[in-house]
Amino acid sequence: MTRDRKLSAILSRRTFLSGSAMAGAAASGGILHAGRAAAANPENLPPHVPEWSQYLGAGVEDAPYGSPSQYEAEVVRRNVRWLTATTESSVNFTPLHALDGIVTPNGLCFERHHAGVADIDPSDHRLMIHGLVERPLIFTMEDLKRFPRMSRFYFLECAANGGMEWRGAQLNSCQFAHGMVHCVQYSGVSLATILNHAGLKPNAKWLLPEGADASGMTRSIPIEKALEDCMIAFAMNGEALRPEQGYPLRLVVPGFEGNMWVKWLRRIEVGDMPWHTREETSKYTDLLSDGTARRFTWVMDAKSVITNPCPENPVQHKGANVLTGLAWSGRGRIARVDVSLDGGKNWVPARLEEPVLPMCLTRFYYDWQWNGESVLLESRAMDETGYVQPTIEALRNQRGTNSIYHNNRIQTWLVNPSGEVENVQVS
Amino acid sequence: MTRDRKLSAILSRRTFLSGSAMAGAAASGGILHAGRAAAANPENLPPHVPEWSQYLGAGVEDAPYGSPSQYEAEVVRRNVRWLTATTESSVNFTPLHALDGIVTPNGLCFERHHAGVADIDPSDHRLMIHGLVERPLIFTMEDLKRFPRMSRFYFLECAANGGMEWRGAQLNSCQFAHGMVHCVQYSGVSLATILNHAGLKPNAKWLLPEGADASGMTRSIPIEKALEDCMIAFAMNGEALRPEQGYPLRLVVPGFEGNMWVKWLRRIEVGDMPWHTREETSKYTDLLSDGTARRFTWVMDAKSVITNPCPENPVQHKGANVLTGLAWSGRGRIARVDVSLDGGKNWVPARLEEPVLPMCLTRFYYDWQWNGESVLLESRAMDETGYVQPTIEALRNQRGTNSIYHNNRIQTWLVNPSGEVENVQVS
Repeated sequence: MTRDRKLSAILSRRTFLSGSAMAGAAASGGILHAGRAAAANPENLPPHVPEWSQYLGAGVEDAPYGSPSQYEAEVVRRNVRWLTATTESSVNFTPLHALDGIVTPNGLCFERHHAGVADIDPSDHRLMIHGLVERPLIFTMEDLKRFPRMSRFYFLECAANGGMEWRGAQLNSCQFAHGMVHCVQYSGVSLATILNHAGLKPNAKWLLPEGADASGMTRSIPIEKALEDCMIAFAMNGEALRPEQGYPLRLVVPGFEGNMWVKWLRRIEVGDMPWHTREETSKYTDLLSDGTARRFTWVMDAKSVITNPCPENPVQHKGANVLTGLAWSGRGRIARVDVSLDGGKNWVPARLEEPVLPMCLTRFYYDWQWNGESVLLESRAMDETGYVQPTIEALRNQRGTNSIYHNNRIQTWLVNPSGEVENVQVS
Repeated sequence: MTRDRKLSAILSRRTFLSGSAMAGAAASGGILHAGRAAAANPENLPPHVPEWSQYLGAGVEDAPYGSPSQYEAEVVRRNVRWLTATTESSVNFTPLHALDGIVTPNGLCFERHHAGVADIDPSDHRLMIHGLVERPLIFTMEDLKRFPRMSRFYFLECAANGGMEWRGAQLNSCQFAHGMVHCVQYSGVSLATILNHAGLKPNAKWLLPEGADASGMTRSIPIEKALEDCMIAFAMNGEALRPEQGYPLRLVVPGFEGNMWVKWLRRIEVGDMPWHTREETSKYTDLLSDGTARRFTWVMDAKSVITNPCPENPVQHKGANVLTGLAWSGRGRIARVDVSLDGGKNWVPARLEEPVLPMCLTRFYYDWQWNGESVLLESRAMDETGYVQPTIEALRNQRGTNSIYHNNRIQTWLVNPSGEVENVQVS
């Protein structure tokens, strides 16, 4: 009860400070502690005229392809050594806690491989379309770049993102518990254009895209999805795909689990039924408590996570703090994100930053005041279909605890009085 | 006359093939030559099962911060050695010809310095607000990150972009003639929030932002712009600003010339009149033919450029080709881009790719057929205010030929029968 009263005090103060009223509130009452009076706090000044104001810096030819500041050396993808037997079939997680906005820089996009990163010479790469088509075709990269072009922002999430968290909170990290998602602008050719160019036969119902890496990744994709919005992409965030993202060619399957976005794409077979490959039978299925398994659960349902605060970003100050995070849905646009400061009892809407695009990350912000007490932070995404991100309890009621994939539960972060943040499960 | 007839033949064929009709046209008539029949053209197959399909590739720990494929080593920023006396006060141009979409990867964003790249330790960096404010304040980076946050996509163009081209076509390159523009998503704090936090005095009319590099860059900015949409940004495309883009803090002045987006921002003085600094008197002014100069010409007017084909991207095939480029305006959204195949006599609308955001690059596409004859390619942007991108002739009529800055002329690319592309001026 005491705790609830404290939380409601936070909430009422929040209302007072929300949005554009904040600056005024800060100016009138000094509630916002950021920024020190220049005269009153000389210790806030740097101790000297810094080196960088005294001498010439590096010239332009020193970095034809630029890289981050030396002071950002900790902002990198990271892997969990014990999670996989080898690094070639493993994953590097995106440092979501260190990012803002909706674009993931190419160098920080999470990577998941099954046989390491294929290092492909694009002039030797080919894409073959065959099977139930009028004209089997082989394309060079140069061929593909002559077809009508498109560019779209999409999130890509591994179906196993958060997979460790089914039975309980395990990874005390935003990066490791959520970092198998990234978002870039893809450029390429509509898959429908290429398929129609080859000519689909009347019984063409399924596709089997195949990768050119040593794993020869294959997945079955229904023709409706292929014709609706899939892309054959050769660029991400403007430049050529990165090697670990499928250079020179990857399939883009908007809103569907990342494993289907076949990298190093070399072949698309057109058939009349699914192939039941290893990656859609022994893997990327959801074992239920009755021993049966859900299959072809392709769509990534609405999900969100608070990226600040989080275990990597403890709260440093009482008073004003920025709460921010990401939301996404494989079924379209995010319609709304709510934030709770009391573990899901009360919810208040967060501010969605434009642009809000379908099947794309959406950035949300919430300006909050921390009073130094324990707080249970949660975010809850709703998409334009009306779907609401579920609790882990609701997911377990439906699917038991055997699952690995499609864990889109509401994440709870416990902010301790010390400001440290923990991954907890409250239900 | 013969040439005009040929051009109109191209145009009529274009209409037939435009948009979604292309795939059907290609399927029925084989007009689109991309893609070879798999059985009929075995020489189109790679000569062997490639290495990358036979062996494990690199594991995930090999590249915590990723970089482009070795086969993309030519896609880098480049400078023009003879353009400036030293590399510390110089420019590296964005390879626009090698990019697609609207996002510029951080590693390829053009850079322009006046004293090299300051290498700043963010924990020692401060921002001071002083002058006509109620409370002079000094902020640490940590302070600034507690204010309400925003993220926005904006283009940034140097006022001197295309400056060499006033008197005639000089640089046979898309990268060098247009590559002082880039576009990223910035994250940071509204400048209005910070100014209101310090409290503006009634006579506060101008700002003087100052950089912490050895050049101590300063520019005068009117208070109306500062309060309307300026940002104090600490992130670009999600991650921290790159050193050459002002790490850890830069001013974002949407739609205004790049020189005003002060990098390594350390100080903002508030005053009641402009300062008339070197960079707004001897530089960044436009000397007219009558000896007077235009000053405070901040807004970057609507402009566009075809990035493919271009001198770096010759046309390789007759028949179907992708024509694509970028358009932008400092006054708002791009409303329309027209393309001409005959040096500006006839115009047809290009396809604008979503999202079309204010003061942001807009990608346009046009699916065209090349018949192997000489063609004069042009693009012409129109923004939501009704402003139309001018010819070089119209610009010279107004401003003579002394100018360096604000050259937003229509670019003409001459496609030769060989497919090679030249920078030409037709008027």
